[in-house]
Order: sequence, then C-alpha cells, then structure tokens
Amino acid sequence: MNLAIINTRLMTFEGDSLGLIKNGAVGVEDDKLTFVGKSRNIDEEDYEEIIDGSDHVTMPGLIDAHVHTSLSLLRGSAQDVPEKEWMNRALGPIAQNMDEEDHLLSSKLSIMEGLKAGTTTFAEFARDVDRLIKDVYIPFGVRVAGAETINEVVDKEGELYVLERSEDKLAKNERLFEDHAEKGLVEPIYGPQALDMVTLETLEEIKRRSEEKKRRVHMHVAQGGREEEQIKRRYGKSTVKKLDELDMIQEDLIAAHCHGASHEEKKLMAERGVNMVGCPSSISMIDGIVPPVKTFLELGGKAALGSDQTPGNGAHNIFREMRTISLLSKCHEKDPTALPAWEALKLSTKGGSEVLGLEDSVGTLKEGKKADLITVDLKKLNMTPSVDVPFSNFIPNLIYSTTGYEVDNVIVNGEEVIRDNGFVSIDEEKIRKKAEKRAEKIFSRAEVDWLEADSEMVKYQREGHI
Amino acid sequence: MNLAIINTRLMTFEGDSLGLIKNGAVGVEDDKLTFVGKSRNIDEEDYEEIIDGSDHVTMPGLIDAHVHTSLSLLRGSAQDVPEKEWMNRALGPIAQNMDEEDHLLSSKLSIMEGLKAGTTTFAEFARDVDRLIKDVYIPFGVRVAGAETINEVVDKEGELYVLERSEDKLAKNERLFEDHAEKGLVEPIYGPQALDMVTLETLEEIKRRSEEKKRRVHMHVAQGGREEEQIKRRYGKSTVKKLDELDMIQEDLIAAHCHGASHEEKKLMAERGVNMVGCPSSISMIDGIVPPVKTFLELGGKAALGSDQTPGNGAHNIFREMRTISLLSKCHEKDPTALPAWEALKLSTKGGSEVLGLEDSVGTLKEGKKADLITVDLKKLNMTPSVDVPFSNFIPNLIYSTTGYEVDNVIVNGEEVIRDNGFVSIDEEKIRKKAEKRAEKIFSRAEVDWLEADSEMVKYQREGHI
Repeated sequence: MNLAIINTRLMTFEGDSLGLIKNGAVGVEDDKLTFVGKSRNIDEEDYEEIIDGSDHVTMPGLIDAHVHTSLSLLRGSAQDVPEKEWMNRALGPIAQNMDEEDHLLSSKLSIMEGLKAGTTTFAEFARDVDRLIKDVYIPFGVRVAGAETINEVVDKEGELYVLERSEDKLAKNERLFEDHAEKGLVEPIYGPQALDMVTLETLEEIKRRSEEKKRRVHMHVAQGGREEEQIKRRYGKSTVKKLDELDMIQEDLIAAHCHGASHEEKKLMAERGVNMVGCPSSISMIDGIVPPVKTFLELGGKAALGSDQTPGNGAHNIFREMRTISLLSKCHEKDPTALPAWEALKLSTKGGSEVLGLEDSVGTLKEGKKADLITVDLKKLNMTPSVDVPFSNFIPNLIYSTTGYEVDNVIVNGEEVIRDNGFVSIDEEKIRKKAEKRAEKIFSRAEVDWLEADSEMVKYQREGHI
Repeated sequence: MNLAIINTRLMTFEGDSLGLIKNGAVGVEDDKLTFVGKSRNIDEEDYEEIIDGSDHVTMPGLIDAHVHTSLSLLRGSAQDVPEKEWMNRALGPIAQNMDEEDHLLSSKLSIMEGLKAGTTTFAEFARDVDRLIKDVYIPFGVRVAGAETINEVVDKEGELYVLERSEDKLAKNERLFEDHAEKGLVEPIYGPQALDMVTLETLEEIKRRSEEKKRRVHMHVAQGGREEEQIKRRYGKSTVKKLDELDMIQEDLIAAHCHGASHEEKKLMAERGVNMVGCPSSISMIDGIVPPVKTFLELGGKAALGSDQTPGNGAHNIFREMRTISLLSKCHEKDPTALPAWEALKLSTKGGSEVLGLEDSVGTLKEGKKADLITVDLKKLNMTPSVDVPFSNFIPNLIYSTTGYEVDNVIVNGEEVIRDNGFVSIDEEKIRKKAEKRAEKIFSRAEVDWLEADSEMVKYQREGHI
C-alpha cells in the first residue's frame, strides 16, 4: 500500500496525552507509517493515493486484548442466566453441536465484526489457534496476538479436577513461535488457560521458556468462584499467591479478568507490571461484576480491554467496551470523573499495545511503526457537532457517542481492509449467509439437550420471552 | 400511508410476553394499524405497497420517556466532571451562548438522531416547547408528549432559591392542551420542573387541573443533593414526602430520575402507580448513579427509559439506554439475571406508553392502534445469526448486540419517516451542516468564560487530553 490521509483530526497517542494534531496527515508505504504530522508538512507527491480525511478522526486501530472469536455462531445463546448456569447449562448444550468448520466460521464472523468497528489487533485465545491464524487471520490480513489454549483437565466430575500433563499441547503452542518467527501479522503467546486447568509442571516449563526467550504468557487469572475453590483445595491458597510462588506475577503475564483477586493482590500485580485485561461487557453480563480496570490504573498498573466472546457479551466491538468500562466504573466508584474518555481511549490503543508487548510496532501512530490505523466519520448525526476550540469535544464523543458504525477506513499492516465502511476483499455476505445456515442447524440439533439442561433461559422461552 | 410489511419476525408486545409471531405481518392504512398477525392471513391486495420484512424484526417504535432535545449542539461539552460542576461550570459557560435558533436546531438534530435509532415518541421537556412542537415535531411527523418547563426560580444566589409565582408560565403550558385538543401527534403534559423550582401555589393548581381533566404531570423528582437540600430547608422534609402532602404521589405523575428517594419512598411511589422514568446513560455519567428502574419494577411499579440530553449522555439512542440499564442493573445487583433483555425491551415499548398515558394509541402493535413501528435489520454482522428454534436468540441480541444503526424503517402515525436507514423527506445533510457551523460559533464565543469557570474539563484540556 502507498497512500496518505490528509486534512484529518489526528490522534497519535504518542507522549503522555493523546498527541492531538488538529490538521494532521499520515503517510503509509508498504506496511509502515512513513509520515505522521501536520498536513501542511506532508509531501503529497510521495504517495500514489490521497484520502481526504476532513471531518474524520484518524487514530491507531483498536486493540482487542482478550478475545475468543470462535463462538459467534452462538450469539445470544447464553444471556441473563445465573453465573453458575452460563457455561454448562446455557452455552454448553448448544456449543457441543459445533464442529471445527463452525468454529472457523464463527471466527471469520467475529473478526469481520471487530474490523468493521475499528479493531485491528486481536489477542486471540483458542484451541487450535494455528488453524484460525492460517485460515482466517492471515487471509484476512489482520494482526493477531495468538495464544494456543493449554487445558490439561481430563476429568471435571469429582470435587477436584483431574489434571494430566500434556507435552503435546505445550508443543503445539511452542510451534507457533517457530512458525511465526518472522514478525509479520502474528505475535505468538503462551496460553495456559487458567491455574486450575493446567499442571504445575507445564506452568513451570512455560515460565522457564517465557523468561528465557522474553515471551508473554496469556492466562485467565482470578476469574471467580469455581477457580477459587479449585485452587484452594489443590494448593491451600489463592490463585495470585500460588502464581507468585511460581514467580509468574511478572511483567510477562497477561492476566485476563482478575476480579477474584483481593485488593492486596491487585496491588502486587500492578506493582510487578502484570498486564491486566478487563472485559467489561462480558463480565458485567455473565457475572454482574465490574472488571477492576480502574483499580489497576489507580495502582499504577497496566490495563487494556477485551471483548471476550459473543455468547457472553453480544458483540465484538471495542468502542462499546471503552464506553462500557467508563460507565460501569463511574457507578462502581460513585464518581462521574472515573475513567474519563481520554483514559478509556488509551486503554484500547497505546495501553493495549503495551499489555500485549506490541508497543514497538502498534498502538500509537509514529513514523517507522506498523501502519495499523482507522478513520472515524464525524459527519454521522450521533457525532455532530465537532469543534476544536476551546477544546476537542469529539474526544469525549469518541467514547460516549460512537457505536462502531462510524468507522470508515481500516488499514492493517499497511493494507486497506475496509474502505468507506465496506470490506475491500472479504466477501461479507457470503460468509454471513453461511453463518446463518450453520447456526440454524447447530441450535436446532441442540433443542432436546438445551431443554433438558433447564437453565433460566428455558424458563424465559416457556414464558414467551425469547 | 397504505402499506404492509410481510414475512417478518413480529414482536407485538401484546399480552404478558413479547407477543412474538415468527412469520408475521402488519398492515397500515392512514395513521392506523389495520392488520397485525400471521403473514399467511394478511390480504396483500388491501395494500398499495408491500415491504418484504424477511431477516428483519418488526416491532413498536421506541419511546424516549424523558428528553430535553434542545441541547445537542453542545454534545461532548460537559463530560467526566464532578456532579457539582456539571451544570454551572461545565455546561453553563457554553450553553449561555445559545440563542433560540440554536435550541431549535439542536432539537432537530436530536430528533433525527433518535428517529434513526428507532425512537418514534419523545417525551419532550423544554422551555417554549410550543415552538419545538410547531417547528420541529409536527413538520418532522414525530410523536411528542410535550411538557412546557415551568420554572419559577427568580434568584438562586442565596441559601434558599427565591421563587415567585408566574401565572404566565402555567398559562403557556395550559395553552398546549387547547392548541392540541384534537389528538394527533401531540400529547400535552404539565411540566413543573422540580419541587425546588416551583411555588406550592402553582403545584396545587397543576394538581387540581390534572386531576379534574385526567392529565399527566411530568416532573424531575428526587434528583439528588442540591434538590434535597433546598427542599429540606424550605419544607423540613424530603421531596417525596412533600409531594405526598400535596397528594401528587399518584398515577398522573411522571417522575424522572427518583434516585434521591429512600427505599420506603420508592415503595410508596410504586404502590401508588407513579410513572418512573430512568435515564441510565445520563445519570451514570453525570452522577455516577444507577437509576432505580429495577427497584421500581421489583416493587410492582411502572417504569420507562429516557435519554435526557446529549451534553450529559452523548446520544439520543434508546437501544443504547436499554442495554445500559440492563448492564448497570446487573452490576448494581451483582446478579446477571437482573433486567433481562425481554424486560428491557418492554421498558421502551409497552412500558413507555403506559408511563406516558399513551397505552391506548402506541407502545404495542394491535389493530386499531396508531401505526408507530420500526424494522430492525438482522443481516448486520453484529446481529448474525438469528434463529427461531429452540428459542429466538435475536431477542437478547436486540438488547446486547444492537447499536441503533440496524434500524431500517421507521413509521410514525402511519407515515414513513425513514426508509432503508435514510430519511424520506428530512434533509439530513443540510441540518447537520448548519449544526456544525452554529456549534463552532457557540463554543468559540464561550472560550473565555469556559476557561474562567475552570472545571475539571479545563484541566483535561490543559493536559492535552481533550
């Protein structure tokens, strides 16, 4: 790609503030940013194509720092149920009818949805993530920080899960690093699912390798009651304390959720530079809990946002996650100044890149960095008006007024994936139609098991509410 | 108008549930619904135009039960500030530069924004509401439950506001009832602003008239600290207790906000049939408070949702308000089953019509009622997939996945206002451009005063955050 966007309201996120340039321009050559600055200083002749960025904000592509994309064919399948029903009685009876093709199709649907709403980097957490990378992320031209889910639970029936070490699973994760040694779109990450689901031997081995080779470890940490009970039975202490014993409370850890940690433990994690990821829609909807993003920031820690999965949160849309964490935090703290717009914007740009260890390549706009950027249309009714004096009202509006549909252009790694809110080369309608058809079959096959599982949703259905 | 929508997923909201008809149709003649039922039972020859509603939900138009539309030129102007700064130090210095034309233009912008996101009835609360009705609502063809703001504060400087009875203001409100005696698009309502802002004489007179003529009274009730203090000083008791003394805690009262009421007072209001309106985005963002909608419903009371005003909440979008109250309530109650999707949907359809006293004409789809309805496109990526077996997943998705941009058709009072997401006769771009120009002038004139008021936003601006 070789293009420039000129005359645009530019937010670079370089420096301590948002790096606002009121009449800015960016230049893209191949996969890199070759110009970031004032529009009057760009040499338009250096670029084959010029996009007029008037009435648009141009900013870094958003980063979804914790996402399971392979479930979106189940959108709306597990909502408004008690937390203890969600996995096994609501989602489970339907999800068990999905095959590998369905997961792949879900992943396509999720990533398309995320792209349209401005997400350019997905921190994917999935079983067989290599297939998603090969068949979806790379063909779509989308950046992925991919972790292979390592789950060593062989039996969940007794009081204590039975774990069994699997060298194969770790080896599968390890192969990602070999296959993607040349940094292009793929950043491999280790993915032990959670402390209650992997053996200590595997965790110790992962810790050893991540330390030696400076690689990140993405893990669900302190995600609530079930985990807490398992860990207490198994190790007689909390998740964070046990992880600290393993020397894993360190800056190579990407810790999703963390709402089950005590304040002291959050403080320890923040001080040690653990990378916290909050999933506001998912955790508020599945657990009725506000993710402790604001707490981590206050304690001087690092934080980012994730969309998790659609059957929990309804959508893959990081604009929505930024607004959601801001509103939830304001009510949780009883303080309308909690998590102001500009702080929320940082979480999913600069913050997201730091959490994933990608700060040298993405998350801010700077010459020499990868060209991952989006434009947001300020001409939509819900974004009108935009002024620059005495302050830029469109910055709060980017959090409190957007829906995601305002995203016009999406460039990943220097390639245009979306132009004027439409895909450049992905066949949206073909994939969408296939998704409809396969979902119909999955849900239909699930009918008997779903009714038998008798979750709160079955009650809603009987009452004519769904 | 004379048209039918066929082959659609129809939600009528008649009966106790959502009145779901999987392959439904509606027929519209003049301003009324002439058919609501199964698609196979409609006689297509009765209609001049047939719209194929496949892959769409057809449902009642949404009801915004508390809204001040005339401020949207100030979108993004007062965010992330302490509650006590919001009105006077953040919004005030900018708002004082608006003239009558600006308010009218704001109103146009707000209503267009609301319409595009599926709102067909606005419970407008404004000074000179007659002008908004005459110059905006009627020309736009939009339903309005309009209250003229009666505010009798003549001096706010001392400890206790000085009030002075104004027969003119009440007379202005009264004229609405005379001017719109023939029920078309306009439902007049009394609008005493709040107990701390009107004299007892005026309130008693409004009470007398509303009881005699069976008219509703729309009022801000128990909206927080400032009001509480004024009422305590003036009357030595709480707002709700004083209103009860005036015999106003009755089913003709539409009470916005109510978060300052005690639990006992909420119980009293719910039992007496007071019509509560919660504004989730506005109150969470301005006050850090979750509106007590869930509490009113639990206590057997009536409730609806409002968008309030854009400089507080960022948007006029009732789909967003439904999702916001659901998520906020789940976290407030620490219960993911709190305010499920189907209950949220009722708040802004059937519930909204009951709260405004419009249940005989709108809020549900039934033959003979006014034709206020919308279609929602389920083919958007963020709404995919939609299944009907073993339950209708698109019902939770209408709350947890929509953004408002999925609304395709909007019919108000039998007239198509929006078709395929575009206005039929409103010149969107002309109004939007005018809004941009005037906003630039308002904000620019405000610069010195805004800086002097030195709110938290001024600090953000100095730090390069806005």
